Amino acid sequence: MSDAMQLHQQSIIIDGLVIAKWDRALFEDMARGGVTTANCTVSVWEGFQATVDNIVEFNQFFNEHDDLIRPVRSTRDIYRAKEEGRTGVILGFQNVQAFEDQLGYIEIFKQLGVGIAQMAYNTQNLVGTGCYERDGGLSGFGHEVVAEMNRVGIMCDLSHVGDKTSQEVILASEKPVCYSHCLPLGLKEHPRNKSDEALKFIADHGGFIGVTMFSPFLKNGIHSTIEDYVEAIDYIVNLVGEDCVGIGTDFTQGQDQAFFEWLTHDKGYARRLTRFGEIINPKGIRTLGEFPNLTRALLAHGWSESRVQKIMGENWVRVLKDVWHE
Amino acid sequence: MSDAMQLHQQSIIIDGLVIAKWDRALFEDMARGGVTTANCTVSVWEGFQATVDNIVEFNQFFNEHDDLIRPVRSTRDIYRAKEEGRTGVILGFQNVQAFEDQLGYIEIFKQLGVGIAQMAYNTQNLVGTGCYERDGGLSGFGHEVVAEMNRVGIMCDLSHVGDKTSQEVILASEKPVCYSHCLPLGLKEHPRNKSDEALKFIADHGGFIGVTMFSPFLKNGIHSTIEDYVEAIDYIVNLVGEDCVGIGTDFTQGQDQAFFEWLTHDKGYARRLTRFGEIINPKGIRTLGEFPNLTRALLAHGWSESRVQKIMGENWVRVLKDVWHE
Repeated sequence: MSDAMQLHQQSIIIDGLVIAKWDRALFEDMARGGVTTANCTVSVWEGFQATVDNIVEFNQFFNEHDDLIRPVRSTRDIYRAKEEGRTGVILGFQNVQAFEDQLGYIEIFKQLGVGIAQMAYNTQNLVGTGCYERDGGLSGFGHEVVAEMNRVGIMCDLSHVGDKTSQEVILASEKPVCYSHCLPLGLKEHPRNKSDEALKFIADHGGFIGVTMFSPFLKNGIHSTIEDYVEAIDYIVNLVGEDCVGIGTDFTQGQDQAFFEWLTHDKGYARRLTRFGEIINPKGIRTLGEFPNLTRALLAHGWSESRVQKIMGENWVRVLKDVWHE
Repeated sequence: MSDAMQLHQQSIIIDGLVIAKWDRALFEDMARGGVTTANCTVSVWEGFQATVDNIVEFNQFFNEHDDLIRPVRSTRDIYRAKEEGRTGVILGFQNVQAFEDQLGYIEIFKQLGVGIAQMAYNTQNLVGTGCYERDGGLSGFGHEVVAEMNRVGIMCDLSHVGDKTSQEVILASEKPVCYSHCLPLGLKEHPRNKSDEALKFIADHGGFIGVTMFSPFLKNGIHSTIEDYVEAIDYIVNLVGEDCVGIGTDFTQGQDQAFFEWLTHDKGYARRLTRFGEIINPKGIRTLGEFPNLTRALLAHGWSESRVQKIMGENWVRVLKDVWHE
């Protein structure tokens, strides 16, 4: 076994964002990739009850595939997952639409296992505005939502959120917040990519940055390779240091065209917001099963083992421990 | 019978906003007041299903009190109500929360008898922002909502909406929109009152202004009289002319303290937005039954009968005819 593979297997590997087609084949591929724990999206456009239904479905997965996956509600569960050789699952939202207008639903979802929630997905909601339209900032109700997420221990994610709302959430939150899956604007101009100022701002305020490899946002698009992904990670580490950066792939593995149509329309069906075109993940990390290649590529880039381990998972664990009141 | 009372009884009297405690006593008082038709609020903070439940309740009122009230779905129904000596009821919303995230619900509510809906109530929703917080303007989804309301024939109301969102709705709408119940900022500084510029802007774009007598927004507060109300109506008519102004009292007759607590908190329960204090309607028009006093006071102010009739109802009928595609 190569040194890289050995390091990968010894390390805590956290994927800060996966929005795949959930089934046994996917969980097997996560195992192949040595993923210790992933933030798995169970809500984007859904309201309260449809999101509960998605969680019911995931609870069935936990039962049926308990040889492969386990729920993660604490960082202790992440270490347990590692010991057991299973992939831990943090249930996550990419939109607070599921909270509807009820602050009380935030604690309900925490009790159901939700550990991370994005404040808006691409467009405006009751809380703030996404990155695909003019952004009026964090609403008064949004301030109440942030405070309640802080209190119950759900991390505020800002990846698809507009700059103004993001900045105001960063200032309002008493706990670290994150861009769970983003790329630098410095490498490619795109509404979803974050400026150097935005990246420094979140880091300067104790926040966290997960780096995605979603090819439409990489400068080489569908011709990207794992080296382009490493370049982006390296760019951000050079900007903000090695202690508040991690991985958030945004794997959409197994999803079909209908899913992307749903994702790229406001509310899942209204006006079109964007078009991804063909999605081909960077060569070398096309599937979750190829995750060890990332450890290899980071080492090949000249990074120390300790830095690689921080980026591959340890940093995520530290920040989650803080947000989850442990 | 006085000339004023005679004119009142001959006229179409429209109240552009009533949010009273609905019961037989109230409908009897409307009859006493000679109200031909009123826009009756059936949704503020409620979502889709709770709003349908409110409409179910109103349908029961239509059945049980059909000697006093009738539904109004067209301006013909307003004339029918007049002939029958009943009060017509336009079901109205003070918030588009009931549409939730479904454009398709707009036509559903039209089919259920909703003729007017306010784009936001005091705070931010999916469409825009109310007048009690910073206003980021009409959202992308909001543009879709306006277009659908235009298509199915539901009037956009902007009374509790922020200035920026209001302005953008006025520009986006292909049909006249309204401030159904507002007062001029020129007479009292208040977040709910409209500046001369705002009043002229809506009038210049074919919109409509209903004038309220809600005492917290009048300069003499609870010590106001019907003359203060006439002063406010006169102020607006002097500003924009006599053809696009009407009445929108905002009668809250019969409501209790719990109702006002619900109304003055975001979503009905979250942070407090405002405090009305004691609510005493202007002397002379404390109840719906005193509506004839308004005709009398406008005549006493020196207005012609034809101007009084326009303001008391004819203007509303004309604009509703246009919005409702008749």
